[in-house]
Amino acid sequence: MVRIALKVEYNGAPFVGWQRQVEHPSVQGAIEAALAKLEPGEHTIAAAGRTDAGVHALAQVAHCDLQKNWTPFRLSEALNYHLKPNPISIVDAAIANDDWHARFSAVERRYLFRILMRRAPSTHQQGLVWHLKNELDVDAMQEGANRLLGHHDFTTFRSSICQAASPLKTLDELRVERVETLWGPEVHFHVRARSFLHNQVRSFVGTLERVGSGNWTPDDVTAALEAKDRAACGPVSPPQGLYLADVIYPDSPF
Amino acid sequence: MVRIALKVEYNGAPFVGWQRQVEHPSVQGAIEAALAKLEPGEHTIAAAGRTDAGVHALAQVAHCDLQKNWTPFRLSEALNYHLKPNPISIVDAAIANDDWHARFSAVERRYLFRILMRRAPSTHQQGLVWHLKNELDVDAMQEGANRLLGHHDFTTFRSSICQAASPLKTLDELRVERVETLWGPEVHFHVRARSFLHNQVRSFVGTLERVGSGNWTPDDVTAALEAKDRAACGPVSPPQGLYLADVIYPDSPF
Repeated sequence: MVRIALKVEYNGAPFVGWQRQVEHPSVQGAIEAALAKLEPGEHTIAAAGRTDAGVHALAQVAHCDLQKNWTPFRLSEALNYHLKPNPISIVDAAIANDDWHARFSAVERRYLFRILMRRAPSTHQQGLVWHLKNELDVDAMQEGANRLLGHHDFTTFRSSICQAASPLKTLDELRVERVETLWGPEVHFHVRARSFLHNQVRSFVGTLERVGSGNWTPDDVTAALEAKDRAACGPVSPPQGLYLADVIYPDSPF
Repeated sequence: MVRIALKVEYNGAPFVGWQRQVEHPSVQGAIEAALAKLEPGEHTIAAAGRTDAGVHALAQVAHCDLQKNWTPFRLSEALNYHLKPNPISIVDAAIANDDWHARFSAVERRYLFRILMRRAPSTHQQGLVWHLKNELDVDAMQEGANRLLGHHDFTTFRSSICQAASPLKTLDELRVERVETLWGPEVHFHVRARSFLHNQVRSFVGTLERVGSGNWTPDDVTAALEAKDRAACGPVSPPQGLYLADVIYPDSPF
């Protein structure tokens, strides 16, 4: 048996999310179906983060266990062949130790959230950004974001269906950056933590958008955090601006 | 009557090109159909550059003549409403003088060509870049590009169906740049001239790719130019990496 770590890029639009569901297209299901073309039988792969419907990945990490002695290069080429025409791409692969686990060995997840700010509808980046018509105040959003850094009870920023045992998490980075692109100005949120609650990033972004548009002050973000009450959260942002951007391991197989 | 200049962004994938064709979807046809929703009757719009099938625009410029006293803002909002779900977006609009013409008043066209260099299939940028699996030598391509600058007979880089009266053109810029993106390394070609021959940019890029991949030397580019023979050209690049990026006017209405 060989355990292989996969770095996976995908467009989340056509999927119900990462996690396999009967009769609905999922990223996990598509990759497992491609694996079954290579080695017949049931395959169950594990991933670092279970992204929601419509959420994208630049570098999701998963692992699979195979019987044949696949080289990482040949496996990724074969998987990419069988994954067509799904918008899923194996961008890297590496042999991992048998006790290495894509989810449990991870010590940090990194997310990127993109907002495109322009009046006109987006053509080239439709479905890849949260499109807003008005300019947001990036400095104010950064000030609001700073209120969320560190170790907190994030009950306010946690969906009601979150299955985490505890609402206590440590947020290591929430950096707000203005980026000029070919399609117009974007805001990028760079978010880092060991792990996240369900909908935590989208709850942060939806809340900070309230600050950037002048409807909330940074103090309102502090008050929302301290309320420890889901009802105190701003609106949850839509999924299509969110990307699982990287996963960090102490002993990376890549 | 009011003449209004339109700055238009579009994804060229679903269209036969800019130019209206009976029974085939075109960008011009889609915009003229949207105009007919605002003022019934026939509309004929003129554009700075007639892009081919699959070629995109960040800032095509066109103009239309309308009976009612439209403000640019209201016209662009109404057009964007009626253009849905076409991937065409009016990103700017402005009142122009009656003797201003989107095509004949233009003194410079700017194109961008994007190549994405990575082994794995592209998910997020599929159809928006020319995807190549191997790294290209940007310095060598720039050296080859320099051989094309200036006033030349560009017969080698002109499609056989080109309708221009003369193959003599002046190439003002052909800059080759490596750009790191979220999806991997890209090469961007920035091309500027007063006007272009049919397929000129794609012929340049296809030829320079030969240099970047080590199959041609910069001297081969010079030899191809001096041959003044279409058969001496490298392969014409595919359309999906090409963007009409800007049009320059001495007296811009925008």
